[in-house]
Amino acid sequence: MTSYSAPLDNIRFLIHDVFDYPKHYAKFSQLNDLTPDLLDAIISECANFCEKELAPLNQSGDHEGCHFDEGKVSTPKGYKQTYQRYIEAGWQSLSYPEKFGGQGLPDSLGFMRTAMTSTANWSFNMYPGLTIGAVKTILAHGSDEQKKQFLPNMCAGTWSGTMCLTEAQCGTDLGQVQTKAFANDDGSYAITGSKIFISAGEHDLTDNIIHIVLARLPNAPKGTRGISLFIVPKINTSKNGELLESNHVSCGSIEDKMGIKASATAVINFDNAQGFLLGPENKGLECMFTFMNTIRIGTSLQGIGAAEAAYKASLEYAKERLSMRALTGKKYPDKVADPIIVHPDVRKMLLTQKAISEGGLAMIYYACKLTDEIDFSQCDKTKKQADEKLGLLTPILKAFLTETGFESANLGMQVFGGHGYIKETGMEQIVRDVRISTLYEGATGIQALDLLGRKILMTKGKDLRVFCAEILSFCRKHSVLSSNEHGKRMNKFLWPLAKEVLAWQKHTFILMLKANNKRDIVGSASVEYLMYSGYIFMGYMWAMMAQSANEKIAAKQGDKAFYQSKIRTAEFYFERIFPRVKSLSTTMMKNPESIMKIDAEMF
Amino acid sequence: MTSYSAPLDNIRFLIHDVFDYPKHYAKFSQLNDLTPDLLDAIISECANFCEKELAPLNQSGDHEGCHFDEGKVSTPKGYKQTYQRYIEAGWQSLSYPEKFGGQGLPDSLGFMRTAMTSTANWSFNMYPGLTIGAVKTILAHGSDEQKKQFLPNMCAGTWSGTMCLTEAQCGTDLGQVQTKAFANDDGSYAITGSKIFISAGEHDLTDNIIHIVLARLPNAPKGTRGISLFIVPKINTSKNGELLESNHVSCGSIEDKMGIKASATAVINFDNAQGFLLGPENKGLECMFTFMNTIRIGTSLQGIGAAEAAYKASLEYAKERLSMRALTGKKYPDKVADPIIVHPDVRKMLLTQKAISEGGLAMIYYACKLTDEIDFSQCDKTKKQADEKLGLLTPILKAFLTETGFESANLGMQVFGGHGYIKETGMEQIVRDVRISTLYEGATGIQALDLLGRKILMTKGKDLRVFCAEILSFCRKHSVLSSNEHGKRMNKFLWPLAKEVLAWQKHTFILMLKANNKRDIVGSASVEYLMYSGYIFMGYMWAMMAQSANEKIAAKQGDKAFYQSKIRTAEFYFERIFPRVKSLSTTMMKNPESIMKIDAEMF
Repeated sequence: MTSYSAPLDNIRFLIHDVFDYPKHYAKFSQLNDLTPDLLDAIISECANFCEKELAPLNQSGDHEGCHFDEGKVSTPKGYKQTYQRYIEAGWQSLSYPEKFGGQGLPDSLGFMRTAMTSTANWSFNMYPGLTIGAVKTILAHGSDEQKKQFLPNMCAGTWSGTMCLTEAQCGTDLGQVQTKAFANDDGSYAITGSKIFISAGEHDLTDNIIHIVLARLPNAPKGTRGISLFIVPKINTSKNGELLESNHVSCGSIEDKMGIKASATAVINFDNAQGFLLGPENKGLECMFTFMNTIRIGTSLQGIGAAEAAYKASLEYAKERLSMRALTGKKYPDKVADPIIVHPDVRKMLLTQKAISEGGLAMIYYACKLTDEIDFSQCDKTKKQADEKLGLLTPILKAFLTETGFESANLGMQVFGGHGYIKETGMEQIVRDVRISTLYEGATGIQALDLLGRKILMTKGKDLRVFCAEILSFCRKHSVLSSNEHGKRMNKFLWPLAKEVLAWQKHTFILMLKANNKRDIVGSASVEYLMYSGYIFMGYMWAMMAQSANEKIAAKQGDKAFYQSKIRTAEFYFERIFPRVKSLSTTMMKNPESIMKIDAEMF
Repeated sequence: MTSYSAPLDNIRFLIHDVFDYPKHYAKFSQLNDLTPDLLDAIISECANFCEKELAPLNQSGDHEGCHFDEGKVSTPKGYKQTYQRYIEAGWQSLSYPEKFGGQGLPDSLGFMRTAMTSTANWSFNMYPGLTIGAVKTILAHGSDEQKKQFLPNMCAGTWSGTMCLTEAQCGTDLGQVQTKAFANDDGSYAITGSKIFISAGEHDLTDNIIHIVLARLPNAPKGTRGISLFIVPKINTSKNGELLESNHVSCGSIEDKMGIKASATAVINFDNAQGFLLGPENKGLECMFTFMNTIRIGTSLQGIGAAEAAYKASLEYAKERLSMRALTGKKYPDKVADPIIVHPDVRKMLLTQKAISEGGLAMIYYACKLTDEIDFSQCDKTKKQADEKLGLLTPILKAFLTETGFESANLGMQVFGGHGYIKETGMEQIVRDVRISTLYEGATGIQALDLLGRKILMTKGKDLRVFCAEILSFCRKHSVLSSNEHGKRMNKFLWPLAKEVLAWQKHTFILMLKANNKRDIVGSASVEYLMYSGYIFMGYMWAMMAQSANEKIAAKQGDKAFYQSKIRTAEFYFERIFPRVKSLSTTMMKNPESIMKIDAEMF
């Protein structure tokens, strides 16, 4: 059975040594109260809650699943009580504005919290997680009246939220949405249609559920330009947020899924349900992107969480399980066999998981600073730059971290051998749960098109050049033009990284040129391009972590063994993982003919 | 819901065009009866059985699972009746000697059958599949008396077989086996111990179950040199195979697993059970290798089967599901959107599955000829060469085809988007079922050590050189030193293939040298080396298939569109999949330090 122990040493390393979050927070007057002590206290307390409350329900929740009975959904045993304690302890209100009852803390801290809740129990995390997206969307696009009506209870967590996009005939292609909205006389709308795959769409954790729904007004333009966004509560409420009668919203069924079984995935039917227009008419998709961008970074945490959980469990197993002798001779002659951690291939599987989960968490901590700059910076230029960079990085975070998270989960299971396939050990649940992460909230292929088609081609590569310049500047700053001790320590990371960043720019430039008359190359190259970009971004993080660790060792500060472990993992990353860029950059640059030439009927 | 339609066009292409099985069979006097007509008839009839009988039970079997009640195991609804029809139709007796009631057909044909039963319903296939291994082991190592006692009923399928190796404390490391065997006065043995993870260990399909059990005699040498092999029937039998009283063999429980739920995985307890020594004392592991090698090739079929099933289902979905427009403009302007098969990334996922499932099947058909040569050739040298080559290829088949099979299954699911995660579509079952294939019967890491440590290093690369020479000779024969039409057609496959075969030899030579003083490199390089080898082997198959297809087109024979599809897939393979050798050959050649240097405590 898997358990959860928050990686506090890694978190503190990222907060203090690598990204200096205290200095970052000190830049913003709104965050004056967030002292380093308070920050550490929040992190520790959250770790404690995740370890004691959330993790113990992870496996039982998978085993029991959610129950559906005549339109009512009940969550597995213990979820309701734990959710209550979760909101009472203030974990849901953490990063919402004080005006609506939140604690006014930054989003970066919200993501740090979610990184822990995700690893401890992703299915549980889905319920408050969806609410975060709904709150953000109402904050960004709602009227003052709507904010007053819905946000206080949502921020408190007594109400939850959903994102109602998908219908049976369309998921990715939201232009096909058929749910209808008709204006009522009182300024509200009557919403009719059926939505599927609605995470947290129905459950017993909160008094009310606020659905954020895409629907089509009469005579709206066809396709995505004719979709509007609506707030549709499960139970109608007064302007002050008091519960009134039930709205015409019902749950038709919940899905029987491969994993995340404690998270209810509902069919939600709207039958002339009362809704309220959110944002301008026919601009629903643009408004929904607020929700989607938040959720996409959130989903990347599912990937990292799975990698971390699989790593921890398989590491423990690898130290205990005795099998065969080391290739170089017995290491534990008094034991019947050596623990499998002596075997190179087992170590490689463990180090791959370590490199991905720790490197991935660094990518998130890097990106989180940008969310704070967007929210709190007084300088428009800084805000805009942060927004553009986060826009570039979001599809990479979502797709790269879920794909590599799935890989890590499978490696963890592989370390367990046949025992990993048995429910009891919990390893196969990690694999089943994380498998959804590359599918929902924009599948990997969609993220890849967003990256290459939108974030690269539509900016003519500008945002990428800015990011590359930053990495090259880091490499220049810390590399040494000699093979002295310091050079030896960092050049082995910085030189291959800088070389590949230059190649990244060159490849991007060529792809942009090719895309002018071979449009299909955008699609044929995109997924490999995204993964390629991910390995470079993660390489940047490992170089930064190695640099910080070297500085700490040189200054004789902290736990030397911990810092050395970071440097060793960086070495592993650059020797064994980073070279994947070779194959990816080879295949992504090929013309699309070998993919496009074959007729559909000839497959 | 997934269904099964046997790939008869691919099978006929492999049998007749690529590998000329009729000519192959004609070489052996024992196979004179196996005319091309009979061969085709058997294949068609088997396809029919798989489509109509096995496939319909695949999803229901997963849903229902096996039942355990006080030591008795019942298989899901329909399995017992279908198994009865399976053995009555002669599918189990196909490739056993006529002397024991078999049909005397070659193993190659047995594998062709199993390739179909595996894809249609792997869980069902486990029951007869394990029996095949048990029969082979008794055939190879049993006394005449033992053969007479056990084989007729096993060949008929009225009794089944198992392989009892694993115990709670050991799976891979069989030197730790603790099950004990004591000699009885009558020449039999009393077996006591507990075995876990016994596939088909207990069920209701047959009248008796013949366990092949590893156990330790008193005063046997420690480790693997002190293990003997025993035949232990669930129910005792007379010398003529009549059922007598129950033996002291009981089923303690069955496992709750991620997948292959219709296949019972049992804990089998032997409590002074009567057993019969199979082969010489203390040579049990060597004898068991007969079983394991058969089962390893069988398991590779699970990988290919999953790839094929996922490919077929996702191809159908990709032609039907309408989402977004092609990047180059609407392809079906009358429809609400284009079918997703127009999108390059979807095509890439489909073509990857196609290349792996068809390329993998070719690898099996290639290897199957070797099994016939071992069984039927009159020439000792031919037998020995075939045995050595099959020994080299077996770990590649097992690990490479299950790893890429798992990749393909996941790609199939990815094509379905969120719908692939829902039980109803059957895609997630394919992923769950095939996940075990890289774990059991020697995990990927074990196959990799077998390949590099045993098959390469212990022969000083001899067997590999023979195989490489064969591929190079093929490349020489069909490549053209000019860029005329014929050259253009084949050189694009043959040149990169030949170049990489030379690199394979070079890399192998360097690894052998390095292994002299860096023993850990055998472990650190092994998995990447195996996957690298697999891509070359599969490349050889795609080059062969392209060559055959080109010949057929040039001769204006058969269905041109079919042959062109093969050539297009070969092009895709060499452009998009084969370049994976770049990253693999980079990382596998690195020294093991970055893996070995980090202390276990510093992970």
